[in-house]
Amino acid sequence: MTEENNSTNSQYGTGYNSGRYPYYYGQGGRLVLVDSALEAVNRGSTTIGIKTPEFALITSHIKPTLPLVDPNEKIFLIDKHIGATGAGYIADIEQLIEEIRLQAQKHRLSYESPIDVKSIAKHLSTYLHNYTIYAVRPQAASIIIAGNDETGIQLYQVDPSGTYLKGNGFAIGYASDTAIEVIQKEYSKDLTFDNALELAKKAIEKSIGDKPRVESGIVTKKGFSKLS
Amino acid sequence: MTEENNSTNSQYGTGYNSGRYPYYYGQGGRLVLVDSALEAVNRGSTTIGIKTPEFALITSHIKPTLPLVDPNEKIFLIDKHIGATGAGYIADIEQLIEEIRLQAQKHRLSYESPIDVKSIAKHLSTYLHNYTIYAVRPQAASIIIAGNDETGIQLYQVDPSGTYLKGNGFAIGYASDTAIEVIQKEYSKDLTFDNALELAKKAIEKSIGDKPRVESGIVTKKGFSKLS
Amino acid sequence: MTEENNSTNSQYGTGYNSGRYPYYYGQGGRLVLVDSALEAVNRGSTTIGIKTPEFALITSHIKPTLPLVDPNEKIFLIDKHIGATGAGYIADIEQLIEEIRLQAQKHRLSYESPIDVKSIAKHLSTYLHNYTIYAVRPQAASIIIAGNDETGIQLYQVDPSGTYLKGNGFAIGYASDTAIEVIQKEYSKDLTFDNALELAKKAIEKSIGDKPRVESGIVTKKGFSKLS
Amino acid sequence: MTEENNSTNSQYGTGYNSGRYPYYYGQGGRLVLVDSALEAVNRGSTTIGIKTPEFALITSHIKPTLPLVDPNEKIFLIDKHIGATGAGYIADIEQLIEEIRLQAQKHRLSYESPIDVKSIAKHLSTYLHNYTIYAVRPQAASIIIAGNDETGIQLYQVDPSGTYLKGNGFAIGYASDTAIEVIQKEYSKDLTFDNALELAKKAIEKSIGDKPRVESGIVTKKGFSKLS
Amino acid sequence: MTEENNSTNSQYGTGYNSGRYPYYYGQGGRLVLVDSALEAVNRGSTTIGIKTPEFALITSHIKPTLPLVDPNEKIFLIDKHIGATGAGYIADIEQLIEEIRLQAQKHRLSYESPIDVKSIAKHLSTYLHNYTIYAVRPQAASIIIAGNDETGIQLYQVDPSGTYLKGNGFAIGYASDTAIEVIQKEYSKDLTFDNALELAKKAIEKSIGDKPRVESGIVTKKGFSKLS
Amino acid sequence: MTEENNSTNSQYGTGYNSGRYPYYYGQGGRLVLVDSALEAVNRGSTTIGIKTPEFALITSHIKPTLPLVDPNEKIFLIDKHIGATGAGYIADIEQLIEEIRLQAQKHRLSYESPIDVKSIAKHLSTYLHNYTIYAVRPQAASIIIAGNDETGIQLYQVDPSGTYLKGNGFAIGYASDTAIEVIQKEYSKDLTFDNALELAKKAIEKSIGDKPRVESGIVTKKGFSKLS
Amino acid sequence: MTEENNSTNSQYGTGYNSGRYPYYYGQGGRLVLVDSALEAVNRGSTTIGIKTPEFALITSHIKPTLPLVDPNEKIFLIDKHIGATGAGYIADIEQLIEEIRLQAQKHRLSYESPIDVKSIAKHLSTYLHNYTIYAVRPQAASIIIAGNDETGIQLYQVDPSGTYLKGNGFAIGYASDTAIEVIQKEYSKDLTFDNALELAKKAIEKSIGDKPRVESGIVTKKGFSKLS
Repeated sequence: MTEENNSTNSQYGTGYNSGRYPYYYGQGGRLVLVDSALEAVNRGSTTIGIKTPEFALITSHIKPTLPLVDPNEKIFLIDKHIGATGAGYIADIEQLIEEIRLQAQKHRLSYESPIDVKSIAKHLSTYLHNYTIYAVRPQAASIIIAGNDETGIQLYQVDPSGTYLKGNGFAIGYASDTAIEVIQKEYSKDLTFDNALELAKKAIEKSIGDKPRVESGIVTKKGFSKLS
Repeated sequence: MTEENNSTNSQYGTGYNSGRYPYYYGQGGRLVLVDSALEAVNRGSTTIGIKTPEFALITSHIKPTLPLVDPNEKIFLIDKHIGATGAGYIADIEQLIEEIRLQAQKHRLSYESPIDVKSIAKHLSTYLHNYTIYAVRPQAASIIIAGNDETGIQLYQVDPSGTYLKGNGFAIGYASDTAIEVIQKEYSKDLTFDNALELAKKAIEKSIGDKPRVESGIVTKKGFSKLS
Repeated sequence: MTEENNSTNSQYGTGYNSGRYPYYYGQGGRLVLVDSALEAVNRGSTTIGIKTPEFALITSHIKPTLPLVDPNEKIFLIDKHIGATGAGYIADIEQLIEEIRLQAQKHRLSYESPIDVKSIAKHLSTYLHNYTIYAVRPQAASIIIAGNDETGIQLYQVDPSGTYLKGNGFAIGYASDTAIEVIQKEYSKDLTFDNALELAKKAIEKSIGDKPRVESGIVTKKGFSKLS
Repeated sequence: MTEENNSTNSQYGTGYNSGRYPYYYGQGGRLVLVDSALEAVNRGSTTIGIKTPEFALITSHIKPTLPLVDPNEKIFLIDKHIGATGAGYIADIEQLIEEIRLQAQKHRLSYESPIDVKSIAKHLSTYLHNYTIYAVRPQAASIIIAGNDETGIQLYQVDPSGTYLKGNGFAIGYASDTAIEVIQKEYSKDLTFDNALELAKKAIEKSIGDKPRVESGIVTKKGFSKLS
Repeated sequence: MTEENNSTNSQYGTGYNSGRYPYYYGQGGRLVLVDSALEAVNRGSTTIGIKTPEFALITSHIKPTLPLVDPNEKIFLIDKHIGATGAGYIADIEQLIEEIRLQAQKHRLSYESPIDVKSIAKHLSTYLHNYTIYAVRPQAASIIIAGNDETGIQLYQVDPSGTYLKGNGFAIGYASDTAIEVIQKEYSKDLTFDNALELAKKAIEKSIGDKPRVESGIVTKKGFSKLS
Repeated sequence: MTEENNSTNSQYGTGYNSGRYPYYYGQGGRLVLVDSALEAVNRGSTTIGIKTPEFALITSHIKPTLPLVDPNEKIFLIDKHIGATGAGYIADIEQLIEEIRLQAQKHRLSYESPIDVKSIAKHLSTYLHNYTIYAVRPQAASIIIAGNDETGIQLYQVDPSGTYLKGNGFAIGYASDTAIEVIQKEYSKDLTFDNALELAKKAIEKSIGDKPRVESGIVTKKGFSKLS
Repeated sequence: MTEENNSTNSQYGTGYNSGRYPYYYGQGGRLVLVDSALEAVNRGSTTIGIKTPEFALITSHIKPTLPLVDPNEKIFLIDKHIGATGAGYIADIEQLIEEIRLQAQKHRLSYESPIDVKSIAKHLSTYLHNYTIYAVRPQAASIIIAGNDETGIQLYQVDPSGTYLKGNGFAIGYASDTAIEVIQKEYSKDLTFDNALELAKKAIEKSIGDKPRVESGIVTKKGFSKLS
C-alpha cells in the first residue's frame, strides 16, 4: 500500500482510531478501513503466482470444506489470454473478477483486439481505489492476474488500496510471508511448469502446515487454461 | 463468508467494535453488520438441502405456530426447474425469493430459455453483496437453491455476505452444525428420494430436539415440485 | 418477524445497542428499530381477526376518547371485497391503509378485475420491508387484512418488519397474548358470525380488563362491510 | 398519537434515548422527535374548537405582546367554507396553513368544487406524517380545522405525528387539559354561538389564569368568517 | 418564536441536549439551532424600527470600527417603497437582503406592480423557516422591514425561526430589551419624524451605554430613502 | 464576522462544543467551523491593504521559504483594474482568486464593461457564505481586494464567514492587530505611494519582528500592476 | 500548506480533535484529514526534484521490494515535455498521475498545442483541493512535476492540501528534511546533469542511511525522458 511497504504482508499495528482522528485516516496516516480489509485478506486462502518468460502459474489453496460442499472456484478465466485468482472475502473476490471480465469484453468490443494485461491491472486498481475515497466499504480481496500479451507473459497483484504490483512471484492470503520466502529461495527463470507447480504447492504447505489441496491455472503464449 | 470459513455455522466471537474501528469492519476485518445478519440466520428454521445425481431435496423445519396461524411457506417455486428455501427473517427471505423469481422470468423473456441454476445463485450473490458495501442493512437470510439444467441437478447455498456455495448437502438456520453432521454421516449418492427425506427429517430432529414438522420440495430432471 | 418467532407478541428482551453493534442490528442480530416499532404496536388498541370458511371478522377495540372527540375509524374498506384494521400509531396505520387502497385501485385499472387478498398482503409486506433497509423510520403499525377472492375467505396479518401471516385468528395490540388465547380456546370453523363477534369482544375484554367498545367489519362471499 | 393516547395532552415521561436505541424511536417505541414537537405545542397559545350541528367556532388565546407589537393572526381563512387555527411554533403553523390553503385551491382548480373538510384534514395529516419518517424536523404545530361541506359542519384536529381527530370540542396548547375539561362540562349541541364563544373564553381563562384576549372564527352553512 | 414568546429577547435557558434528545429539538421542544442563531442575533447591533401612520423609521447602531474601516451598510433599499435593516451575522443579513430584493424584482416583472410589504415579510419567513427543517445551518439574522403599500405604512420583523411580526415598534440586537422599553414609554402615533429619530437614538444609547452612531432610513407615502 | 466584531482579529474564546450544542453553532451562537477557519487565517502571512484617493496598495509578507523554493505569488491580478491578495491556506486562497477572476471575465463577456469592485467583493462574499450553511468546509482564507472603477479607488476585505468590509486600511494574517495599529497611526489621505509602501513594510516588520520580504501591487486610475 | 509553513516537512503536533471542534478542522484551524494524508506522504519514498536553466531532474528512491517483485514505476511521462514523480500511497499517486495525463491530452485536443507546466500544476492543485472541502478522503500523495515550455524549464511540487510550489529543488517523502538540506548545500545553477544526479542520489542516501536504488527522469528543451 505505502511505498515503503509494498508487500501486503505487513503487520497492522494498532490501527487505532479512538476518536483522535477523523474518519478515513488512523494513526500515522494509515487508511483504517483498508487496513481492516487487508486483515480479512490475510485470513484468506494462501494463494501463489509464479512467472517465468515462458508461462505464469496461479495456484490457490483450496481449504477443506464440509464433506458435502464443493470448494469455491478460485482460479478464474478472465479472457482467452488472462486468468486470475484471489484471497479475501469470496463475494468480494467474485465481484472484482466480474468487473475485470467485463472490462476485457468491453475492450474486445471497442478495439477488436485482446486487452493487455497491464490495462486489466490498472482498471482493477482504479476500481478498488474508488472504494477508499468515499464513505463506502473498501473491498476485502487481493487479486493475482496472470496473462500473456504482446509484451510477453505478465503477472500482477492488486490489493484493496488499489495498489498494483508486477513481478515474478507473489503470495497473498494466510501466512503469505512464509509462502513467499519459499518461492524466493527456489525461484529461477528456468523453472519448468512442473517445477513451478511443485514449488507453489510446497510454499502453500509450509504456510498452512499441512498437505494442501490446490487449484491452479496456467498462461502460456497459447493462452490461459485451468488445470484439472 | 471468508474462505477459511466457508461454513456459515462459525462462531461469531466478540464482533466487537467499541469505537476502535470504523463502521463497516470489526476486529480482524470482520464484516460486523453481516455477522449480525448471520446471527439472525442462525436463529431461523433449521433448513436442509440434499442433492444426488437424480434429484435435489430441500426441506425446512416448520416451527410450531400459534394454533390459528398458518405456518409461513418455506419452500418456494422459482421457475419450472428451480426451487428455493431459506432461513432468517421471513420478510428478508421473501424479498430475496421475489428477486430471483424476477430474474428467472427476465431470462426467459430475453433468451426464450430457462435460466441455469448457477446464474440464479450468482445473481442472488451479487444482489446480497451490494447490501454489504453501502450504509444500508445487509439482508438477514441465507437461501438454498435447488434446480435442474443442462449440467444436471444443482444445489446452491447463498448467505448474507453474498457468498455462494455448491454442494451435495447444506444445512442453515438453528443448530445447523448438528444437522449437517447427521447428513454427512449418512449421505450417499445412491440415496433414494425417500431415504433423503428421512435423512433431512432426522437431521432437523437432532437439531431441534423434537419431532419436526417440515415442508419439502424436490427437483428432478422433470422439474421442481413442492411436496404436500 | 424471525421464523422462530412468528407471533408478534414476543418479549423484547434487552434490545440493547450500547455502541457495541452498528446501526441496524442489535444483540443477536435483532432489528432494533423494528423492535421499537413493535413496542409501539403492543401499546395500540387490542385488535382481532377471526376467519371461518364463510366469513372473516375484524374487530378493534375503540379506546375511550375524550367526551367530545370521535374515536378514530379503525375498520377500513380497502376494496369491495377487502377490509383492514390495525394497531400502532394512527398516522402510520392510515398511511399503510392508503397504500393498499391505492394498490387495489391500480390492480382494477390494470387488469379490470379485483386484486386477490394475498397480493394485497404481499404488497404491504414489501412496502413495510423497505423501511427496514434504509436509514428511515420503520412504520409502527401491524395490519390485519380480511378479504374474499377466488380462493375463498382470507385473513392476513402484516407487521412492521414486513412479515405477513395467514390464518384463522389473529390478535395484535395491547395484551394481544391474552386475547389470542381466548380465541384459540373457543375457535371453531363452525362459528356463526354472532358467535365470532361475541368471541372477539370477549377476547378484547379479557385483554383490557374492561367492557370494550369495538368497531367491526365483516367480509363474506358478498364482499366487505363495516358493522354499525 | 398512539391510539391509547388520542389526546395530545399526555405526559411525556422520560422520552429518554441515552444511546440505547437508535435515532427515531425512544423507550417503549415512542417517537422522540414528535414528542419534542408536542412539548413545543404544549407551550403554545391555548386554542379551542367547538362544534354544534349549526356552526363551528375556533378560538385562540392571543398572548399579550409587547405594547407596540401586533399579535400574530391566529385564525386563518383556508377557503370560503373552511377556517383553521393552531398552537405551536408560529412559523411551523404558518407553513401548514399555507400548505392546506394551496391544497384547497388545487381542488377548486381540478374539480371546480370546494374541497371537503376531511380531505383537508387528511392532506395535512399525510404532510405532517412525512416529516416523521425521514431525518428532518417534524413540525411543531397542532392545527384545528373547522369547515362546512355536504356532510355538514366539521371540526378536526391534526397533530405533529400526522394523527387527525374529528369531534365536537378540542383544546390544544398551554394547559389544554384544563381547557378541555371546562368545555366538556358545559358543552351541549344546543349551544348558541354566543354561548359557545363565552365557553371558549372561559376555558382559556381557566387555563391561563387570567382574562384572555382571544381571536375567533366561525363557520356556518354560509361559510367561514373571522370575528372582529 | 413560540407564541408565548413573541419577543426575540427571551432568555435561552439551558438549551441543553446532552445526548438525551435527537438532533433538532432540545429540552422542552426548543429548536436548539435556532436558539443558537438567536444568541448571535442578540450580540448584533442594536437596531430599531418605529412606525406611525405617516412614516416608518429604521435605525441601526453603527458599531465603532477600526479607524480606517468603513462601517458596514446597515440600512438597505429593497425596492422603491421598501427598506430593511437587520441584526446578526453580517453575511447572513446580506444574504437575506439579497433574497428579498430579488423577490421584489420578480414581483415587478410578473405583475408589473410593486410587491406589498406583507408578501415580502412572508417570503422571508418561508425562506428562513426552510433552514430550520433540514440538517443545514439556520441563518443567524433578524430583519426589520419597513414599507409603504396600498394598506399604508407597514413595519415587520422576521427572526431566524421564520416567525414574522407586525407592529409600530421593534428592537433587535444587543440589549434590545432595554431599547424597546424606551420606545414603548415615549411612542405615540403623533410622533414627528424628528421625534422618532431622536427616540430611536435614545433607545440605542440606553442599550449600549454610549453615544451611538447610527444609520437610518425612512419610508413615507413617497417611498423609501436612506438618511445621510 | 458579527457586527460587534468587525475586525477579524478577535479572540476565539473557548469555541467549545462538547456535545452541548449541535453541529454548526458553538457557545454564544458562534460559528465554530468559521472560527476554526479564522484561526488558520491568523497564522497566515501578515498582509496589508492601504488606500488613498489616488491609489490602493496591497502588500503581503513573503515568508522565508526553503532556499531553492520560490515563494508563492501573493499578489494576484484579477482584471486590468483589480488586484487581490490574501492570508490563510494557500490552496484556499488560490481557489477564491480563481473564482473572482472568473467572475470578472463573465462580467466582461456579458456586459462588455469592467466589473465594479464592490460586485467582486459581494460575489466573493456570497461564495464564501455558502460554505458556512452546509456540512462542508468553510474556506480558510481572508482576501483583500483593491480596484478602481467609476466610483474611484476601492479597497475591500472579505473573510471566511462571507463578511466584506470597505475601508482605507486593512491588515490580515499573523499579528494583524499590531500591523493595523501601525497603519492607523501614520495613515493620511495625502500619503504618496512611496510613503504607503514604507508604511506597509513597517507594519509587517512590527508584526513579525523581523525585516520583511514583501510582494506588492498597486492600483491607480490607470489600472492594477504588480510591483517588481 | 499554510503560508508560514510552505515546507511539507513540518511537525504535525497533536492534530488532536477530541470532540472539541467539529469535523474538518482541528486545533489552531489545522486541516486534520490533510495532516493525516501528509503523515502518509512523509512515510513514502524519498523523492527529489532539481532544476537548472538547462534541465530538470526528478529522482525517486526505489525501496527494496521482495526479491521477485518489480518495483513500482515512480517516474511518469505526463506528456512529451512533462514528467512527474510522487511520494505517498501508490494508488493515490497513480490516480493523480492519470488525472494530469488526461488534462495534458485534453489541452492538446482543444488547443493543438502542448499545455504549459504551470497549468498542469494548477489543475492538480484544484483537483486535490476539492477533496479537502467535502466529506471524502483527501488524497495522500505529493507530486513533483518537471517540464519544459515557452517560459523555460519548470519544476513544481503539489501537496495533498492542493498547495503548489515552484522552485529549483524539492524533496518529499521519508526524511525529506535531511534530503533537502543536502541539496541546498551543493546546488548551483551550473550543475551538469551528472552532478545533479549524483546530488540527488547523495541526498536520498543521507535520508535513508543506505545506498539507494533510484529511478530518474530528465526534462530538457528537447522534452522529457526516463533514464534507464
